[in-house]
Amino acid sequence: MPLEANRVYNFNPGPGTMPLPVLKEVQAEMLNFHGSGESIVEISHRAPQYAEVHAQAKADIKELMGLGDDYEVLFMTGGASTQFALLPLNFATKEHPGSYVLSGSFAEKCYKEGANLGVAEIAASSKEGGYKHVPTQDELKINSEAAYLHLCYNNTIYGTEYHYIPETNGVPLFADMSSDMLSRPLDFKRFDLIYAGVQKNLGPAGVTLVIAKRDLLAKSPEKLPTMFKYSTFLNKDSLFNTPPAFCIYFVGKVAAWIKAQGGLTVMAERNKKKADLLYAAIDNSDGFYRGHADKDSRSFMNVTFRLPSEELEKQFVAEAAEQALCGVKGHRSVGGMRASIYNAMPYEGVERLADFMEKFRKAHA
Amino acid sequence: MPLEANRVYNFNPGPGTMPLPVLKEVQAEMLNFHGSGESIVEISHRAPQYAEVHAQAKADIKELMGLGDDYEVLFMTGGASTQFALLPLNFATKEHPGSYVLSGSFAEKCYKEGANLGVAEIAASSKEGGYKHVPTQDELKINSEAAYLHLCYNNTIYGTEYHYIPETNGVPLFADMSSDMLSRPLDFKRFDLIYAGVQKNLGPAGVTLVIAKRDLLAKSPEKLPTMFKYSTFLNKDSLFNTPPAFCIYFVGKVAAWIKAQGGLTVMAERNKKKADLLYAAIDNSDGFYRGHADKDSRSFMNVTFRLPSEELEKQFVAEAAEQALCGVKGHRSVGGMRASIYNAMPYEGVERLADFMEKFRKAHA
Repeated sequence: MPLEANRVYNFNPGPGTMPLPVLKEVQAEMLNFHGSGESIVEISHRAPQYAEVHAQAKADIKELMGLGDDYEVLFMTGGASTQFALLPLNFATKEHPGSYVLSGSFAEKCYKEGANLGVAEIAASSKEGGYKHVPTQDELKINSEAAYLHLCYNNTIYGTEYHYIPETNGVPLFADMSSDMLSRPLDFKRFDLIYAGVQKNLGPAGVTLVIAKRDLLAKSPEKLPTMFKYSTFLNKDSLFNTPPAFCIYFVGKVAAWIKAQGGLTVMAERNKKKADLLYAAIDNSDGFYRGHADKDSRSFMNVTFRLPSEELEKQFVAEAAEQALCGVKGHRSVGGMRASIYNAMPYEGVERLADFMEKFRKAHA
Repeated sequence: MPLEANRVYNFNPGPGTMPLPVLKEVQAEMLNFHGSGESIVEISHRAPQYAEVHAQAKADIKELMGLGDDYEVLFMTGGASTQFALLPLNFATKEHPGSYVLSGSFAEKCYKEGANLGVAEIAASSKEGGYKHVPTQDELKINSEAAYLHLCYNNTIYGTEYHYIPETNGVPLFADMSSDMLSRPLDFKRFDLIYAGVQKNLGPAGVTLVIAKRDLLAKSPEKLPTMFKYSTFLNKDSLFNTPPAFCIYFVGKVAAWIKAQGGLTVMAERNKKKADLLYAAIDNSDGFYRGHADKDSRSFMNVTFRLPSEELEKQFVAEAAEQALCGVKGHRSVGGMRASIYNAMPYEGVERLADFMEKFRKAHA
């Protein structure tokens, strides 16, 4: 039976699937936003209707994360890749370098931007063996003089995720949460700065969320270019220049949708249930499916696994697509499959994938 | 009579009014883009459906501008304000500074970012007298060692626009065309680099177009952060990381709409006709309306004018809004009114505004 509006189950790693009710709201409002007589894409970023969207999105994100007035939400651009440069430019020096935990491709790219500026060091790495786990607390060598300890909290490509918050003994804790942002409750107050490109869990590519302590954001060096300073975004409420208003509007709707579902606790329950189903399909396959991630580091967002041969992997991708199960091909650096099951992926989609995995295995084992 | 879908005539300076047929297409495709079963906001930026959008948008923009293979279109983020820093970082040095023509607020902001980096000088300025005109060729003092001469081609706040292309004697010519991009034909080959935030004439805020000579874009210094180098965008076809896909998709639709209308020649005819109507309303008002810009520098995009008193100006804004003529309030640094009449503003909207100006004048002269 075809899905509503002939849609598919979209397992892509990002841009990723969005909540259908949000897409429908956006569609309904496209020609006339809240009685303004203008589309949200046309409305002035200084108009009261937009100001409400902007403020509400910030408030909802902070509420979902349980953060207070000492934290600020910034709407920036350029994706996580731009943050990789902005973090060391704003906060690190040779005396107080950034300290990086290497747990995957993006963690490594982030470190390299700091190293390129001569202000980075490595606190731990799980590269050996192919980034199958995230480094444990015991593996971390944290320089007490470091400007920050940087983590990539979920590793989209390798399918690993932190299941603990590192103790840093006072070193500010920074995390790239691009692929698990707002997917589960955490003690977010233990982080000093969190950032995320939104295109996996939260909205259309084009806005980067930065949620951080206000007193930290105020510390940008005076001489940096205006648009590279966190303080510019802090002082101007992310309205120094025209923000990516449509993306912010969409993210606001997704945040409201998450609240309406019951918040991060409900998201986490659903996401765990979905992940459990797929990991069970792997673990109960008599070795037909081989998970890439070590069990204690398995991601609830990206489930990575191999099949017995590349031939079968190609066949799996093609046959899955015929069942409206799209985007399951893994990243070339791991190979095999990756099922990304972000907040908006319904349980039914994952159930259908698990059923397909079982049938495919029986046909080819 | 209310407009279709209770829309208004949106004279805002940016974000600005968009073509209604484009908004309707975007609306129709929101749940399922081109049979993919996914929304354009959900689709992978590596998917063939997106690749087609990306390539077509680039091709249409180059075709409209009459540019060949020696030019490349980049899709960047951060708005013109980010370009203000990237230009000197990529191209200027103390020996070969950027040379800036100051013709308004954004031209000045751009210069300041270069000056902050110690690599900028002023070629001309019309600040004295309140930026009422753009400097003429005779006023330009171009350092032959300059890395580039930078212009802001249309000055949104002051309502002035260049009506000539400066002769630079070999110094590369750069222009911020954020507020008049694709509004008229020009000999674009005389420019080495053109950039524009798209939210005035071309799409939703969130993507910055850079159209430049390929051999120039290749010259970024190796040591710059990855995302600050034009060469990264050149070498990776603006797909080094996830681009603002929805904004690019929308810009592509606007470019196709411009082509279908007859291209830049038709846009220019329409825009001149609209501007002529408003400037006539000013010039024939016996001094009731006073234009800000000198006649030879008048913008076809932003028509700025004052009324006899601030009291009347407030009343004008309020009464215009009652007639569905929205966003006519000027910028605080000029005061008075500003009617932004970008490509997508229909002639009927401008006619209605001119009629209103006439009635208002008769009631209050």
